[in-house]
Amino acid sequence: MNSNTNNKKQNKKVLPLGEDIGGEVLIIGAGLCGSLLALRLAQRGYNVNVYESRSDLRTTDISAGKSINLALSDRGFKALRLAGVEEKARKICIPMYGRLIHDLEGNTFASNYSGREGEYINSISRGELNGLLLTEADLYDNLTIHFNNECTAVDLENNIASFYNHNTKENFKAKADVIFGTDGAGSVLRKSYYLERKFLFSFSQNFLTHGYKELEIPPSKDGNHLISKDHLHIWPRGDYMLIALPNLDGSFTVTLFLSYDEGEYNFNNLTTEKKIREFFQKQFPDALELIPDIASEFSNNPTGALGTVKCSPWYYQHKTLILGDAAHAVVPFYGQGMNASFEDVTVLDGIIDEHNGNWETIFKEYQKTRKEDADAIGDLAEENYFEMRDHVSNPIFKQKRALEVALEKTFPTEYFSKYSMVTFNEDIPYHTAMLKGRAQDKAILNMIADNDIDLTNDLKSILATIKAETKEILDEDKVAGLK
Amino acid sequence: MNSNTNNKKQNKKVLPLGEDIGGEVLIIGAGLCGSLLALRLAQRGYNVNVYESRSDLRTTDISAGKSINLALSDRGFKALRLAGVEEKARKICIPMYGRLIHDLEGNTFASNYSGREGEYINSISRGELNGLLLTEADLYDNLTIHFNNECTAVDLENNIASFYNHNTKENFKAKADVIFGTDGAGSVLRKSYYLERKFLFSFSQNFLTHGYKELEIPPSKDGNHLISKDHLHIWPRGDYMLIALPNLDGSFTVTLFLSYDEGEYNFNNLTTEKKIREFFQKQFPDALELIPDIASEFSNNPTGALGTVKCSPWYYQHKTLILGDAAHAVVPFYGQGMNASFEDVTVLDGIIDEHNGNWETIFKEYQKTRKEDADAIGDLAEENYFEMRDHVSNPIFKQKRALEVALEKTFPTEYFSKYSMVTFNEDIPYHTAMLKGRAQDKAILNMIADNDIDLTNDLKSILATIKAETKEILDEDKVAGLK
Repeated sequence: MNSNTNNKKQNKKVLPLGEDIGGEVLIIGAGLCGSLLALRLAQRGYNVNVYESRSDLRTTDISAGKSINLALSDRGFKALRLAGVEEKARKICIPMYGRLIHDLEGNTFASNYSGREGEYINSISRGELNGLLLTEADLYDNLTIHFNNECTAVDLENNIASFYNHNTKENFKAKADVIFGTDGAGSVLRKSYYLERKFLFSFSQNFLTHGYKELEIPPSKDGNHLISKDHLHIWPRGDYMLIALPNLDGSFTVTLFLSYDEGEYNFNNLTTEKKIREFFQKQFPDALELIPDIASEFSNNPTGALGTVKCSPWYYQHKTLILGDAAHAVVPFYGQGMNASFEDVTVLDGIIDEHNGNWETIFKEYQKTRKEDADAIGDLAEENYFEMRDHVSNPIFKQKRALEVALEKTFPTEYFSKYSMVTFNEDIPYHTAMLKGRAQDKAILNMIADNDIDLTNDLKSILATIKAETKEILDEDKVAGLK
Repeated sequence: MNSNTNNKKQNKKVLPLGEDIGGEVLIIGAGLCGSLLALRLAQRGYNVNVYESRSDLRTTDISAGKSINLALSDRGFKALRLAGVEEKARKICIPMYGRLIHDLEGNTFASNYSGREGEYINSISRGELNGLLLTEADLYDNLTIHFNNECTAVDLENNIASFYNHNTKENFKAKADVIFGTDGAGSVLRKSYYLERKFLFSFSQNFLTHGYKELEIPPSKDGNHLISKDHLHIWPRGDYMLIALPNLDGSFTVTLFLSYDEGEYNFNNLTTEKKIREFFQKQFPDALELIPDIASEFSNNPTGALGTVKCSPWYYQHKTLILGDAAHAVVPFYGQGMNASFEDVTVLDGIIDEHNGNWETIFKEYQKTRKEDADAIGDLAEENYFEMRDHVSNPIFKQKRALEVALEKTFPTEYFSKYSMVTFNEDIPYHTAMLKGRAQDKAILNMIADNDIDLTNDLKSILATIKAETKEILDEDKVAGLK
């Protein structure tokens, strides 16, 4: 195999799971999903070569990675636990216990993510978590990461991937028994599925009308957080939204979600410092005070697109499989993108347990098990876009959240909101959580709208009514042949 | 403009709509949608050049086109009326008043499409209808159709389309003020949108697990139809389905819908005459008797894929627009593919009335008006796949259909089934029909399942209950933020 290895290895671990079973595995992309997959397959004894287009984020300028933080929750932790790195990851987490909603007048309202103790999400730096996984990967003799090698195409029939080395400026090819594509939303392997037309490839990419831009609230002079670090902050304004997640250094990464070309203010017309300041002054005056460099950050930081990718099949014969964003990129509004990608590794690992060595069966079973859940989190994330930018400040939705938190507090083993099922219950598949959660939401929202909930009544009877209504909604959908 | 004109013109008509307004219009594809669009734009005075990859279907061997028939209904007729060709089309129609369902034992059950008089769909030959439109198009001096010219790419920025001439084997380019892509499900213009990446292009192609194959029931010796020509015949078998539509020559075009690779019988394993006959003998014994050449037809006729295409945007600036299957290919199970494409022309024509000359506004308004309706018919057609192959033989669905026909008969101006709204009410947009129709279906199915409908009760009170339940379902979805 022609390759260009950049990383150094020291203190190699002994393989924990027994003998090398001799499979040559090639992974395209050493991002979050690819690194974790590589680690897990190395632990299983496979010979793993990972090719990553960028340079090693642990040794290059960290600032690019630093500004991006993500929400890590229980599905993610389950996968990290499987690979033995959960505790290391927890050390770089900042718990966020709920949303803190900022209104136009600067008032704030807290809304907990759960009524149960110990249920919270975590702000974590993408770069630091990725680095942690790469450092762990370096401990395995049978795992090599080749940085600065960009995949340009995959020959599906012969299982040969082509690469361009950014250092040597040379093109080369690499062959393997199995090729995994964890090369993100713009996956080259997925593109080969689409363009080679070897099979009927169902595929969708769906962009929202809004893009996003990242900004920064710096730490205070003494290095502390200027607003609560225990919350995910939201400034919901209907047509646009600002959010902020805390970083370990006292700063916050702020993300503006805004239309490209609709409405009075949009990315296309916010082109002068005057107009940018006017927009923030009118819509986010309290946030504006915390972002000193707003005009230069707004001009210099890129505007990103928000897209959902779904496709099928994810695999070709016994040869290739795509996972993570490459197979199912989602918009960021449920905080589940990374968690879903990590969960892919958990699910695949369980199926390898049953069919080790038989890749075609593994891939088939994996897709059969995982596809409806990946579709569900894509749909849930798009729906939450509307909930976050709009519904969180809607009175009926607020009442619903308050009621759900009270129910979870009082009946911690009996009531689980949709958000809790998705975020904190890693053993409930996304698709199940979506169907039950939607029915439950519909039941509660309609009971509140119809004044059918007497809040002076005891919570126990309210819970019973919600359960009965939810069941009826699910039954009626079933009779009508709806999902 | 470099072009290669194959058609001959005679007896040119005087432009009916006044002066030539000077717009150079290029249309890619002279199929059903492209021919009708060309005709209508010529009637409006535009200079229209249409490039079609195949040869003129009126002068080449007709057999390829002859075997494919389609269902034409009220949305299609409305568009044909606009172009002045409705009556000519009606002359080559065979009315189908309902479904005739064939069970395994050879019993048949009729199920009318409507309880109202004069509501029926029509079997029509794709080739003959297309030929009729081309012949009409030939009457316009300002409309030229260039056959055997295959579009290979479109330069979006400069509005230049590239072609390959199958006769001269030469490549050439053509420029126009506006380019329309009516080049079907595999649209080259749509592919340019995807590959040129000039804008965020949301796109999906979704294939069913089943493909289709066309077979033929020939006419009787004296040229008559061997089974009722007044029905669309269905042999629903859950995992697969056979349908048949009548042709004017006494034959039927039969279509088998079957999985590629799942189940005991599928396209991949039906490879011998023995197995093909065994399959039909077990599943469609009455149909087998009517298809003498089953084995050779099965082996020689191609297996087609069933895909739904959705995308957005459909246009680029003031320069290009895709319509018909190029913008929204649908599966054939609602009999609306051609009707939806023709309705595109009706909708576009209405918007040209308002904004003639301003193509960017026309395209924007057209997409705004039309997109949710195109999406809706795509979804309805996929849903009907399950209804046709499965539900038509389900007792609750059968009771529902019988009740709906009775309601339409008794209250012809008050009750409209989903099927009637979609098929016979060309002034109800698809999206409206879908939402109301789904709610109505859900109400009726649940009332039947719960024994809430007392059929000894008078129909008037049953109708009132259905209307109230339907309203409640729509209200509850609205409160829950669902569509």
